[in-house]
Amino acid sequence: MVQRLALRWPVWLLPWRAACTPGTFVQQRTWAGATRTPSWGRLHGVAGVSPLVRRGSSSKSSQAPEVVLTCERYPVRRLPFSTVSEEDLATFERIIPRRVITDPEELEASNVDWLRTMRGCSKVLLKPRTSEEVSHILRYCHERNLAVNTQGGNTGLVGGSVPVFDEIILSTALMNQVVSFQDISGILVCQAGCILEQLSQYVEERDFIMPLDLGAKGSCHIGGNLATNAGGLRFLRYGSLHGTVLGLEVVLADGTVLNCLTSLRKDNTGYDLKQLFIGSEGTLGVITAVSILCPPKPRAVNVAFLESPFYVLVETSGSRVEHDAEKLSSFLEHALASGLVTDGTLATDQGKIKMLWALRERITEALTRDGYVYKYDISLPVDRLYDLVTDVRARLGSQAKHVVGYGHLGDGNLHLNVTAEAFSPSLLGDLEPYVYEWTAGQRGSVSAEHGVGFKKQSVLGYSKPPEALRLMQQLKTLLDPKGILNPYKTLPTRA
Amino acid sequence: MVQRLALRWPVWLLPWRAACTPGTFVQQRTWAGATRTPSWGRLHGVAGVSPLVRRGSSSKSSQAPEVVLTCERYPVRRLPFSTVSEEDLATFERIIPRRVITDPEELEASNVDWLRTMRGCSKVLLKPRTSEEVSHILRYCHERNLAVNTQGGNTGLVGGSVPVFDEIILSTALMNQVVSFQDISGILVCQAGCILEQLSQYVEERDFIMPLDLGAKGSCHIGGNLATNAGGLRFLRYGSLHGTVLGLEVVLADGTVLNCLTSLRKDNTGYDLKQLFIGSEGTLGVITAVSILCPPKPRAVNVAFLESPFYVLVETSGSRVEHDAEKLSSFLEHALASGLVTDGTLATDQGKIKMLWALRERITEALTRDGYVYKYDISLPVDRLYDLVTDVRARLGSQAKHVVGYGHLGDGNLHLNVTAEAFSPSLLGDLEPYVYEWTAGQRGSVSAEHGVGFKKQSVLGYSKPPEALRLMQQLKTLLDPKGILNPYKTLPTRA
Repeated sequence: MVQRLALRWPVWLLPWRAACTPGTFVQQRTWAGATRTPSWGRLHGVAGVSPLVRRGSSSKSSQAPEVVLTCERYPVRRLPFSTVSEEDLATFERIIPRRVITDPEELEASNVDWLRTMRGCSKVLLKPRTSEEVSHILRYCHERNLAVNTQGGNTGLVGGSVPVFDEIILSTALMNQVVSFQDISGILVCQAGCILEQLSQYVEERDFIMPLDLGAKGSCHIGGNLATNAGGLRFLRYGSLHGTVLGLEVVLADGTVLNCLTSLRKDNTGYDLKQLFIGSEGTLGVITAVSILCPPKPRAVNVAFLESPFYVLVETSGSRVEHDAEKLSSFLEHALASGLVTDGTLATDQGKIKMLWALRERITEALTRDGYVYKYDISLPVDRLYDLVTDVRARLGSQAKHVVGYGHLGDGNLHLNVTAEAFSPSLLGDLEPYVYEWTAGQRGSVSAEHGVGFKKQSVLGYSKPPEALRLMQQLKTLLDPKGILNPYKTLPTRA
Repeated sequence: MVQRLALRWPVWLLPWRAACTPGTFVQQRTWAGATRTPSWGRLHGVAGVSPLVRRGSSSKSSQAPEVVLTCERYPVRRLPFSTVSEEDLATFERIIPRRVITDPEELEASNVDWLRTMRGCSKVLLKPRTSEEVSHILRYCHERNLAVNTQGGNTGLVGGSVPVFDEIILSTALMNQVVSFQDISGILVCQAGCILEQLSQYVEERDFIMPLDLGAKGSCHIGGNLATNAGGLRFLRYGSLHGTVLGLEVVLADGTVLNCLTSLRKDNTGYDLKQLFIGSEGTLGVITAVSILCPPKPRAVNVAFLESPFYVLVETSGSRVEHDAEKLSSFLEHALASGLVTDGTLATDQGKIKMLWALRERITEALTRDGYVYKYDISLPVDRLYDLVTDVRARLGSQAKHVVGYGHLGDGNLHLNVTAEAFSPSLLGDLEPYVYEWTAGQRGSVSAEHGVGFKKQSVLGYSKPPEALRLMQQLKTLLDPKGILNPYKTLPTRA
């Protein structure tokens, strides 16, 4: 009963060895530990923490050690694309005057990924404002056989958003205009470079919310969200982007503008082409505009932060404050009486809700402060979700600083993170292929929501049969025969 | 306010010139007419009507006039596929013993569509039980260059489900097994030939519901629902199949089994290949099994049937009877006070709910009894939804028996139906391209949920740009280079 109820709501599983606020430590407690840190009183104290550092913020990069070039860390060879010439730069300057960036310092932030594990050596960053400009750029790159890495907020976790070698970086940063919003239906049309948090604010002022939300919202672009089929914190409630996205405008590799930017709930006029590009990580086309369905803003939101052996964050949303409060307290009474929940706190005001969410959203950031992080993003049957954490913990013993499992309970999505002082091939050898084989044994997914990017190409076979991998390759060849779009990514070429 | 509330619920717009129960007449009332037939008392009387005749039922075919062969009614030429030989039949008999149907009487029901507007002349119907059998059949047909028409419940409205010439009919009727159901997550895995209503019963016994429901549920197959990207009556609440379908098993044209049958909420391991097949009407592959997410069964369901100038059917579902009743009555009070609603009835018990729904679900059937039906299935901006009906009514004058507009208000989906004594080229000429041009002028869709099939191929251009049509054709060529799967359908070949 409780299990069922829990699954009807957005539920997030937090690591027992909880990652707390930045600057503090990753708590070292056993799985069955007795300490109960975030009780009512303690949680109120969270109010005093420092302001959020958004993912994508460059605050730490000035002091951080230099990131090794991707081509030095990984066994990857440059494909025979052309190299950007002075003549190319002049052409780009004609297409988008004063928006061709070659300054090395400005390029640095776009060459290095947020996790600081990959570094490209691109010499040029382009900032188009319109899909026509993107079309001109791609048509030219296609003719010249120049490789292109489309970049949104550069918040990805699998190295998909930065160049591997000297690919041209095509930034969506200036494509940040809202095109239209329908007050009756909640349908938003905007350019791909709109920042998710700004869109959220825009539609909330109009009594709607975005159907997705994620920790990187302050930096990530809606186009990047779609290109990576972002999951995030509202997935359980509002479903996949494959359902909520109504239309896309995409520029294909040869510069063709594919206009599927309808704002219709239903449209069965042939194949649903936009679906191809959702989750294709910029390898099949460049998403330039989006039409997306926004749900009505809930009038009542409750957040509960609960303890049993796990920390669980539950958010409910509905249309009547009293109704929702009544339902939630009835659920909690039941959960407490049955012993499933032992302690917790509730929040209804925005400030406290944000603080509770920050505990969840900033885990990624906290982990990066614990040392080198081996990251896995796994889908599993819900009843096996945490077994992988305990198995890995037992397997690694003292090799790891921490083996942390958190994620999205309702979605069956486990974020397994292993931290260590530094990168070590022997630790990696103990983790892989073990984690992937374990996942495949449960018919799980080796990439639940983070995608494939550069880092997970070689492990697709654990979750996808050869026939599917072959069809992926055929689609790539059909849509981008020269392979200029986000090369070295997504496709199983480095098996 | 009321408008907004209404859009949060499943809302169906019924025709003012309402189609009532079978055997009765299509009521002739003006748009602003004063009679109020379905008031409280009258509606209860609906209990006495005859049992539902399901779409796909053959009850009427025995007396109905012969349906003209498609190739005689439409200007279409047979493509150079092979013709089924005795040797082919013997091969099929070896693959699926005693499930190769050549009896003309049995073939009749599969050669003619439900609307009785199309007739193929297939000489053989195959009834595989497994995807391996489908794979053997397709591999053989591919080698032999034999065309194949996959058929589910044969309830489609655009001629997609029956052969145009002598294509082999591949029926999913015997692929009707449930593979698994997860009580925690509500994930159902089943074969493609399961009948929607039977799946509904199956999951309802387990306290879940199917995410889709439609008038043809007693006959349609889940595989056909996916192949046509069926919308239906729960679309507004639970969203598109592109969001609720988690996995598919598909047999490709050459017999390759593409197993994307995962049961995971999140899986970002590369391109989401299953999306290609949802809505592709059997032209890219044969769907043999499905993994689909079922929502929890609502504990409280309310149906309101309201009158203002339109009949509106509203269904709410929630988790608490009292809460939902309170919310609904508060909404109705507001709607009545503002004059938006003038009369109506409420239902909470299953019997009355079904009766009210029957009024909506049986409109299609009622229309077929009014004569020849010109059917259009249009997506429009909600505020223009009914204007097309009044415009067409004015344009046709006495040429038409009735011009009926009903549909799904919340989805912006209008079913425009024009009835006449018999088919008339001059009436058709007044309807087309007028209806399509009108729709294109609003950037609407000329096929909201019924699909393209055989009948709408030539009008895709009103809703899709040439670049999209070209990509559709390229995808078809990639996946089915010989074009043996459901030929003459979906693609814009008869422009």
